[in-house]
Amino acid sequence: MNAKRYAPRLYLDADLGKDKGVVLDRDQSHYLINVMRKSVGDELVLFNGRDGEWQGEIQQAKKSQCLVHVTDYLRPQAASPDIELAFAPVKKIQNGFIVQKATELGVSAFRPVHTDRTNSDRLRDDKVRLQAIEAAEQSERLDVPEVHPLTKLDKLLKDIKAEGRHLIYCAERSEKNNPVATLNTINGTEKITVLIGPEGGFSDEELETLAAVPGATCLKLGPRILRAETAVVSALTVVQAVCGDW
Amino acid sequence: MNAKRYAPRLYLDADLGKDKGVVLDRDQSHYLINVMRKSVGDELVLFNGRDGEWQGEIQQAKKSQCLVHVTDYLRPQAASPDIELAFAPVKKIQNGFIVQKATELGVSAFRPVHTDRTNSDRLRDDKVRLQAIEAAEQSERLDVPEVHPLTKLDKLLKDIKAEGRHLIYCAERSEKNNPVATLNTINGTEKITVLIGPEGGFSDEELETLAAVPGATCLKLGPRILRAETAVVSALTVVQAVCGDW
Repeated sequence: MNAKRYAPRLYLDADLGKDKGVVLDRDQSHYLINVMRKSVGDELVLFNGRDGEWQGEIQQAKKSQCLVHVTDYLRPQAASPDIELAFAPVKKIQNGFIVQKATELGVSAFRPVHTDRTNSDRLRDDKVRLQAIEAAEQSERLDVPEVHPLTKLDKLLKDIKAEGRHLIYCAERSEKNNPVATLNTINGTEKITVLIGPEGGFSDEELETLAAVPGATCLKLGPRILRAETAVVSALTVVQAVCGDW
Repeated sequence: MNAKRYAPRLYLDADLGKDKGVVLDRDQSHYLINVMRKSVGDELVLFNGRDGEWQGEIQQAKKSQCLVHVTDYLRPQAASPDIELAFAPVKKIQNGFIVQKATELGVSAFRPVHTDRTNSDRLRDDKVRLQAIEAAEQSERLDVPEVHPLTKLDKLLKDIKAEGRHLIYCAERSEKNNPVATLNTINGTEKITVLIGPEGGFSDEELETLAAVPGATCLKLGPRILRAETAVVSALTVVQAVCGDW
């Protein structure tokens, strides 16, 4: 177990199965050979979000292309709870942080959303995807969260309604309510979207819109003011602990 | 309310009360005048951890020394739950992050602890203190967490036993237990120390030591592997939500 624990863990697209050979792309090969200093015969762990977790052995080690022989089946693919995160992009470093932490906490998808006080209008989907893959590799997840394109709040609300998802939104200046008690009332809900506002919170108009969403749950995360990225971790923690797989 | 919300919020040592005059130190004066571009007549919010929250007005604005006239009483001093964080110092950026987030989440004190796999042996108390003050100012807390010096794990366990504190430690590879259900069994406990291990977790020997602490609570934070700083936020969230002031 210890050897596997410290073996590099990589996400890839290729199908995985006993004795299959898979080719790693240029970036992964570079990481493995030049950064991790691995070579022929070294072990690694592979997952693709579909076929569970597999052990592999490096068969050919070139700087730009590694060939891996898939050897042992380690874990079956497990379904993660369908808990998504919708968040307003903030500063670059914090966005990376939000994606990393939310992936560790098991979110099924990211839905970046433009709000009245959104601090940033741009978010590169491809970068979010790479950050999510890296966090998934390190957190021992067996899948990588999906990344939706940046959308407006009213479009987000329409989408999650159409998909039959339950909305949980966090409003810091709302009336005191204990998040565990609040979430207990929706325990058993299967498709959840957790929405976290930008620094400075939602505008009054947005809060009215959110309060009018049928069945939506308003969560207050304690009496202190949390930064956007702290609110993400706290909200996903209580949602996973009460409605998820903790 | 909006004016106050965007007014600078400063922690200081001086006593606060109606019509008192307080002098800000060089760093705070610099921040106020040069960074925030404030001048005579501008408002700010003050707290000292004892006298509640007060509004003040800048009476003299020099780059190295500001004089503030304390005008209105905004909020009484409220007692925070006595929930401390003991943590193994990790990398510099993550330490800053841990201190910031834990302060936002209302910890009463920091107890840095040296463990078998501690990634860093050094932690500057004065820097932790400054980070905690900055986070307290921004989170609208009315106090600043105390900072204990770096200590060894066995000394920490002795200290918290002598002080009658309840130990909650997080072990990621322990058996599945839901943190909310686990914490419900100690709801009502007043003096809590939450202990988070280093990257790579506690050693087997340390886990035996921790399991042998009478009454200690072992918390598992979900099925995925969390980084040290994510574990801090998640653990403090569930502890505050179940045993704290959420």
